[in-house]
Amino acid sequence: RVTTTPVWPVEAGSQLHLPLHRAVSRNLNQKDGSPMEKAFQDYYPDYSSHCYGCGRLNSAGLQIKSYWDGEETVCRFDPKPYHTAIPGFVYGGLIASLIDCHSTGTAAAAAYRAAGRAMDTDPPLRFLTAALHVDYLRPTPIDGPLEVRARIKEIKGRKVVVSSQLLAGGQVCARGEVVAVQVPEHLAPGGK
Amino acid sequence: RVTTTPVWPVEAGSQLHLPLHRAVSRNLNQKDGSPMEKAFQDYYPDYSSHCYGCGRLNSAGLQIKSYWDGEETVCRFDPKPYHTAIPGFVYGGLIASLIDCHSTGTAAAAAYRAAGRAMDTDPPLRFLTAALHVDYLRPTPIDGPLEVRARIKEIKGRKVVVSSQLLAGGQVCARGEVVAVQVPEHLAPGGK
Repeated sequence: RVTTTPVWPVEAGSQLHLPLHRAVSRNLNQKDGSPMEKAFQDYYPDYSSHCYGCGRLNSAGLQIKSYWDGEETVCRFDPKPYHTAIPGFVYGGLIASLIDCHSTGTAAAAAYRAAGRAMDTDPPLRFLTAALHVDYLRPTPIDGPLEVRARIKEIKGRKVVVSSQLLAGGQVCARGEVVAVQVPEHLAPGGK
Repeated sequence: RVTTTPVWPVEAGSQLHLPLHRAVSRNLNQKDGSPMEKAFQDYYPDYSSHCYGCGRLNSAGLQIKSYWDGEETVCRFDPKPYHTAIPGFVYGGLIASLIDCHSTGTAAAAAYRAAGRAMDTDPPLRFLTAALHVDYLRPTPIDGPLEVRARIKEIKGRKVVVSSQLLAGGQVCARGEVVAVQVPEHLAPGGK
């Protein structure tokens, strides 16, 4: 089913991504409590794993996790009670942060896919945010998990444009668009 | 000296943090050294003072403070060491949060000004973010105070468009634009 779906406007070698893709999708849908697949962020080199939003080594941070889910990517996050805007609703900066970090993670995952590479291969591909846009459509309830779902809108050279929706209780509460740019090698020490 | 010394690893809420803030505010608003002006956020009714970004009643939050500085508004903020993107630089979500909350505060202050009203008069005027855009121009160093400077681009009915720049060490590191909309009365209980 997956193989019949156009993925990116990307050349071959992309067959390599399919097994990973299937595995991740399967694990996302698992109900039996078996271990989760590694998230995009778990493949980041140590050097780029200190981000407050998505770094697994930032103990004070949000430590968001992103996964493939078919042609989309998904990040689920439980806001803390102090992530308030007005009582009962999530503050906009958290929504912007989730969209930002999930989108740069998605850009990285897409770049590996486009190159036909697994995410644990060197050199690491990491992305910075060049531009972030968020439309806040309605107040986002704080009392449940948030879900950011993203799609690749465009890959052009080192630039990836990622569109996303933030949902709460199945309702779209915000829309995001991020222009992500691959980190130049001199800012991204290679390897782990 | 305090202003040139990184205040962390001092914890949030520490008394050591306060003199820096007062010094900055006095320099901004009071040339004669008289007591600190109240920030826009200090006028918010209790009900809308729980925001993680700008609520004075959110002890876990950023508690940003915004002031008039001529026709501009300004907010200064000292990032914590854990507000990292990659080591040495501020993560984009914090920048988005500062621009967001400073801009809604600026929208409120501008609305009071436009109405010829002081900020402590009822009914309170509070703004939500309808759209947030941030262009990240260069990596933002984490080892010093950040400054967000904003201007009113447009006031049209209940909508205020706020343009801003985020500076570090005098360099513009990001540009923001926020479309802020006045909170409907039914979501904004009046008075203090």
